[in-house]
Amino acid sequence: MWSLASRSSLSHRLSRRALSTSALGARRTAPEATLTALRDLLGDRLSTAASICEHHGRDESYHAVAPPDAVAFVTSTEEVSKVLKICSASATPVIPFGAGSSLEGHISATEGGISLDLSGMNQIVHVEPENMSCRVQAGVTREQLNTDLRATGLFFPVDPGANASIGGMVSTNASGTTTVRYGNMKTNVLALTAVMADGRIIKTGSKARKSSAGYDLTRLLIGSEGTLGVITEAELRLYGIPEAEKTMVCSFNTIKDAVDTCATVMQMGIPVARMELMDENAVEAINKYSKLHTPIRPSLVIEHHGSPTEIEEQSEIVQAIAGDFNAQDVQLASTIDERKKLWSGRHSAWWATMTQMPGSRGLSTDVCVPLSKLTDVIVETQEDLRKTELFGTIVGHVGDGNFHVMIPFFNDDATLMKKVREFSNRLVLRALAAEGTCTGEHGVGNGKMDYLQLEHGDSVDVMRAIKGALDPLNIMNPGKLFYGNPNAIRSDGSVVEQAA
Amino acid sequence: MWSLASRSSLSHRLSRRALSTSALGARRTAPEATLTALRDLLGDRLSTAASICEHHGRDESYHAVAPPDAVAFVTSTEEVSKVLKICSASATPVIPFGAGSSLEGHISATEGGISLDLSGMNQIVHVEPENMSCRVQAGVTREQLNTDLRATGLFFPVDPGANASIGGMVSTNASGTTTVRYGNMKTNVLALTAVMADGRIIKTGSKARKSSAGYDLTRLLIGSEGTLGVITEAELRLYGIPEAEKTMVCSFNTIKDAVDTCATVMQMGIPVARMELMDENAVEAINKYSKLHTPIRPSLVIEHHGSPTEIEEQSEIVQAIAGDFNAQDVQLASTIDERKKLWSGRHSAWWATMTQMPGSRGLSTDVCVPLSKLTDVIVETQEDLRKTELFGTIVGHVGDGNFHVMIPFFNDDATLMKKVREFSNRLVLRALAAEGTCTGEHGVGNGKMDYLQLEHGDSVDVMRAIKGALDPLNIMNPGKLFYGNPNAIRSDGSVVEQAA
Repeated sequence: MWSLASRSSLSHRLSRRALSTSALGARRTAPEATLTALRDLLGDRLSTAASICEHHGRDESYHAVAPPDAVAFVTSTEEVSKVLKICSASATPVIPFGAGSSLEGHISATEGGISLDLSGMNQIVHVEPENMSCRVQAGVTREQLNTDLRATGLFFPVDPGANASIGGMVSTNASGTTTVRYGNMKTNVLALTAVMADGRIIKTGSKARKSSAGYDLTRLLIGSEGTLGVITEAELRLYGIPEAEKTMVCSFNTIKDAVDTCATVMQMGIPVARMELMDENAVEAINKYSKLHTPIRPSLVIEHHGSPTEIEEQSEIVQAIAGDFNAQDVQLASTIDERKKLWSGRHSAWWATMTQMPGSRGLSTDVCVPLSKLTDVIVETQEDLRKTELFGTIVGHVGDGNFHVMIPFFNDDATLMKKVREFSNRLVLRALAAEGTCTGEHGVGNGKMDYLQLEHGDSVDVMRAIKGALDPLNIMNPGKLFYGNPNAIRSDGSVVEQAA
Repeated sequence: MWSLASRSSLSHRLSRRALSTSALGARRTAPEATLTALRDLLGDRLSTAASICEHHGRDESYHAVAPPDAVAFVTSTEEVSKVLKICSASATPVIPFGAGSSLEGHISATEGGISLDLSGMNQIVHVEPENMSCRVQAGVTREQLNTDLRATGLFFPVDPGANASIGGMVSTNASGTTTVRYGNMKTNVLALTAVMADGRIIKTGSKARKSSAGYDLTRLLIGSEGTLGVITEAELRLYGIPEAEKTMVCSFNTIKDAVDTCATVMQMGIPVARMELMDENAVEAINKYSKLHTPIRPSLVIEHHGSPTEIEEQSEIVQAIAGDFNAQDVQLASTIDERKKLWSGRHSAWWATMTQMPGSRGLSTDVCVPLSKLTDVIVETQEDLRKTELFGTIVGHVGDGNFHVMIPFFNDDATLMKKVREFSNRLVLRALAAEGTCTGEHGVGNGKMDYLQLEHGDSVDVMRAIKGALDPLNIMNPGKLFYGNPNAIRSDGSVVEQAA
């Protein structure tokens, strides 16, 4: 009842223009008056150049490019607020842009509007070693931050692979190889500054490590993909660079043995800092790419962080567990250079996969399943690839139950594209049947909107009601997460009638 | 703009009755027709007996008792849904009740209505050792769960002290002594089943350890104090019972030395499973209560969980750090019985404090501050107690920056009550000035509503907008978190005019 009522009442407030053009997710080109107002505010920092718009509508995914009408290069929270006020006055969509490393079409201007480029907001506002926290602007990249922190002996642990911006990592709830030990963005963001759809600036959270004071807006904004507001600053938890690190690489006869090793390590509670799987296809692709001769078998890379005594003990236990599953070719490394060498294969997996089909683009799936189901789901997925006669490599943050199938393709090969889409669809359904999620860390964007509904059912109506309450004109990154205008469309797809 | 608009539009939908009686938080007694419908549904499990209503309006806090009009003893999610449908039809408030161990008046029927007693929903739905997770109904208590889990070698780590219900712990985002190692409810709840204000049943999250699929409704509901919906089931993360545990108690010449020891341990990243502070008043009260002769000095209790090698190493490092701050009377324990003995003082701190003024009730403050400010805030708070000539003991989960001042009082001693309130107010202001939070783990309830606004500023309007979208009739635990009817009252306290 409430959700229908709230959408109906929200439609009262939608201007005729907004309703007529956006109810079904149609294009809402920024009016000339809006562009003029933005140009008055930003001067040269508003660009309508075709190449710049094109660049801002393209991420690293396989999704179609949808360039915005203009790009606003902002430099402060206050400026973001002014841009939002101008855009909300004409119901012009606003799409936040960080580093453009999204894998699910988050930054494409599906309905037109303004790309809000935050890369110029790249100041580290403060570092507080005694609180093990820092505050950064949204455009700071992960690598920039860790380079800056080096002298303090602290680091920010969330590592999605790409040199993403912190704002983008907040928006997609990024995680990665170290999440098994240090958690994801939800674990490591203490507080946010955000600009809401109407331009109001809010601050969420505090510098304290925990709080029970009201609704957790910090974690509501994390993973909201720019659809509720624009993240402009984040207070982050930092960790001491470990006293010692140790990395092990080993291979197995079957992928089941490799994944069962992971599951056993997790169930025994042995601390690991990273635990990455590569299937035989990934190993073979890396061999070809890097001219190596590693045995072509499913492999694990496992890392420990701690005191020298701790990591030796942990590594010995993990080696024993791996031995129970007939691990082979065990290589160990403690020095930085040796560890880098062992990790180089895993780090090059994406490019190694893509170069198997020169000139191809690539898709990366992102399911995450309960640890108890991980072995079955990965084994079935490998069998599915074989049966489908589809080339793909599997890499995974298996300590969290999250893995990616990376598949190179050519857009103009319709038969291949159909195979890829159908495989990806089967994989998501397999993960949902195993009570997992369609996306462990990449987000929904416009690539997984079907699955959001399938995964969350009636909960999506609650999400839509929140969206409607906080962004009644549906200007914040429209066309992502939900189909059409979440404020004007019922979950059965019918349009709520305009009452007046 | 949106928040005013959304409140205005919501007021359209408020029935004349709801608006006229609830806009200012006035009493909305359950109409006889509602009680009849509930009696038809529940039979004897609806009670209007004065003693039962009285019991359900009283928590463990110092807040006034506000009994509900009736208590509904529910046994299933479907039944909760039916109760909500009946109550929403007459805009009758619904107040979820678990174990009644709230410390901020969460369960009092401030505006009348129905107390929804979930203690009969005490089934452990499943335990999945291989996924290290379990699913429980909301009425399961923490101790019941851990007793049931014993044979599996797993445990649920969040320990707020009281034998709270899991539903209540979800609703207040509970944490406690082990949070420094295992996290709080936000870390350890994977998924929820909840009934929304209109009776719709939703499921949030999944069994996977992480997800980026849509808004995080799980963490929005955690800490929402029954104001958005009723938690009926939770999927929880479990951990292996540690191979070995080691506890150390030691004392210090000054509280600054004790807190600085904690801060140093945290900054060095030494793993601790618990790290609890007791000030000299707490030690003295425990001595009297338990007839002990412990030296009356600020003390720390520190526990390590891990392999025997790990905990020995960790304990030695912590002892060395404590030694640098002139720790004395170091006692160590590894066996269960010895550890229990060392912990008994900390566990009895509340009752030991209360018995210093026989027949008194007690207040427990709950601020949480950045680690970098913890020493100063605790030292200033102790000085404040002395200057105010107020008796209170300080205990704290200092690894998280969270501490409690426990103060016994007599309601009829107006001078004392004024002193207590003013002290508590100064403490919250001190914590907020240090960029901390008014409540680390107890929640806002009706005791900290002033501070929610002070701490979060404009963010509270965003919270109100979410409340308005999900509970337009303001029936879910009204009078908590926000003053008056959050859907009809502006943040300046003025009432939104009824448009039609």
